[in-house]
Amino acid sequence: MSTSKTFSRVAVVGAGTIGASWAALFLAHGLHVTVSDPRHDLEEYVTAQLAAFTPTLAALGLPTDDLTARLVFEPELEKAVADADVVQESGPDDLNLKQELFARLGAATRPGTLLLSSTSGIRATDFTARMADPGRVAVGHPFNPPHLIPLVEIVPGEQTEAGTLADAAAFYRQVGKQPLILRREIPGFVANRLQSALFREAVHLVTTGVVGLEDLDTIVTSSIGPRWAAGGPFLTFNLGGGPGGLEHFLKHLGSGMEMLWQLLGKPSLDEATVATLNAQVREAYGDRTHGQLSAARDRDQLALMAALRNAD
Amino acid sequence: MSTSKTFSRVAVVGAGTIGASWAALFLAHGLHVTVSDPRHDLEEYVTAQLAAFTPTLAALGLPTDDLTARLVFEPELEKAVADADVVQESGPDDLNLKQELFARLGAATRPGTLLLSSTSGIRATDFTARMADPGRVAVGHPFNPPHLIPLVEIVPGEQTEAGTLADAAAFYRQVGKQPLILRREIPGFVANRLQSALFREAVHLVTTGVVGLEDLDTIVTSSIGPRWAAGGPFLTFNLGGGPGGLEHFLKHLGSGMEMLWQLLGKPSLDEATVATLNAQVREAYGDRTHGQLSAARDRDQLALMAALRNAD
Repeated sequence: MSTSKTFSRVAVVGAGTIGASWAALFLAHGLHVTVSDPRHDLEEYVTAQLAAFTPTLAALGLPTDDLTARLVFEPELEKAVADADVVQESGPDDLNLKQELFARLGAATRPGTLLLSSTSGIRATDFTARMADPGRVAVGHPFNPPHLIPLVEIVPGEQTEAGTLADAAAFYRQVGKQPLILRREIPGFVANRLQSALFREAVHLVTTGVVGLEDLDTIVTSSIGPRWAAGGPFLTFNLGGGPGGLEHFLKHLGSGMEMLWQLLGKPSLDEATVATLNAQVREAYGDRTHGQLSAARDRDQLALMAALRNAD
Repeated sequence: MSTSKTFSRVAVVGAGTIGASWAALFLAHGLHVTVSDPRHDLEEYVTAQLAAFTPTLAALGLPTDDLTARLVFEPELEKAVADADVVQESGPDDLNLKQELFARLGAATRPGTLLLSSTSGIRATDFTARMADPGRVAVGHPFNPPHLIPLVEIVPGEQTEAGTLADAAAFYRQVGKQPLILRREIPGFVANRLQSALFREAVHLVTTGVVGLEDLDTIVTSSIGPRWAAGGPFLTFNLGGGPGGLEHFLKHLGSGMEMLWQLLGKPSLDEATVATLNAQVREAYGDRTHGQLSAARDRDQLALMAALRNAD
């Protein structure tokens, strides 16, 4: 495989929220897409999701005319993937199911077909255990929803070939994503681990009564959220150190940082903690429906993504 | 004190980076500002900083004509604050110095003057120890730089009166900030604790070779950064749970989250760790000057803040 290869036929295997979002993104980037899933309402569900995602795709500046002209539904897995350049798998995160699925994918696809999994929880090394040629498999883990948030973490299994990682990155760049290749498998990969580290302290601060849940959300959206949308944590502290950079920053503020690390909370998600969080979420957001809250958040999200794209 | 009070005369005590940024923000919101600092280059420094901040203020939609018309320099502390409705103190974070300073501020200001400190590290309970009337003092901790990032954490000391907190919030809203009142003092307050929790795992992932430092920054700017600029962590997971909300989310993904918490790294900032980080920062960003990196980050930051303001 070489990175100059072009990708024109994609099979989306597994048509839940993530699969449908991938399908929408691939279609908006001009690819031929075959969606496969045993669900009885396959065509109805994916078509409805596509319609729901179309305004977002349009707001991102993507062409949305005739998206369904290059879309095919094929419940039978082997038929769906026979012709594909790439398979993006987004099935349930069940090890046995995924091992079986990737054994079938390996047998039913052409030898050069790139096999990518959206899994957030299972290592490629594990779910490819029953395949003859796991070298062309990698994790391609999006940050939900894939048609809007740029990141894809590409994670190699122990058998993944270097060319597979390069091809996967080229494929994701072709559809406008920001792919990053991790050096090795680790539970939660990078983004979810970072997210969980912050969430842990958020749970601690709310359940110990330092700050209300809605106020904590507002603190994040009015400080570290926009800060980290413009620059990652290392760049932020590198600039925070002035002309002396991160070195100066750590020399002067490193010991304070280490002191805070020792003071961070270690909550568990026991019944009382979960009850407190659920009650405060209802108090903060219970006056609006999921649809209303999503619409407001998505409007802000889209405005941000458009602003970043225009600024760069 | 009552929240219907208007604030027109502010004394900015301490003219470093933070103090100068506060002064710029206050002036752009039409306040009369007296800046006090013993530094010999006071007028020259603040005037230069004001000029540097002006394009940002203008991009935020604030009037920037004749900013200096309402600006006075007064090195002598007692004279500078005698007439003030509010004092925003941004001196060095040294307990003895701050205790001395607030004793003088208490004696030199009118009894109704609001006394606010930008400190990120010292409790109001501690730095007001030598004051007769600590009830009108609170921490008003900005997220750097105050003229651009919306958050101000208002933190009460043990003696702070409730009216002081309400007045401080009204004052910060008057100058376009997003004030949040914490319920009690805690080291690092909220934003810096959350930031340090994420940074700790970031240090772990880079120094254990899971991901390169620049790639980690890109992962954050292409996923959780923009996500948390549009919605805080609790709202994000509340929406992630679908119509069932956070309750559904925690029921299904809570145990996976707890598992990740157990796996988070516990790095220290020892010599080898700091050397690794410094080397990778140089590799990632060493080809650009501090000024170039700042300009690129600030351009993105401004575009984001403008987009959020327009979307809301």
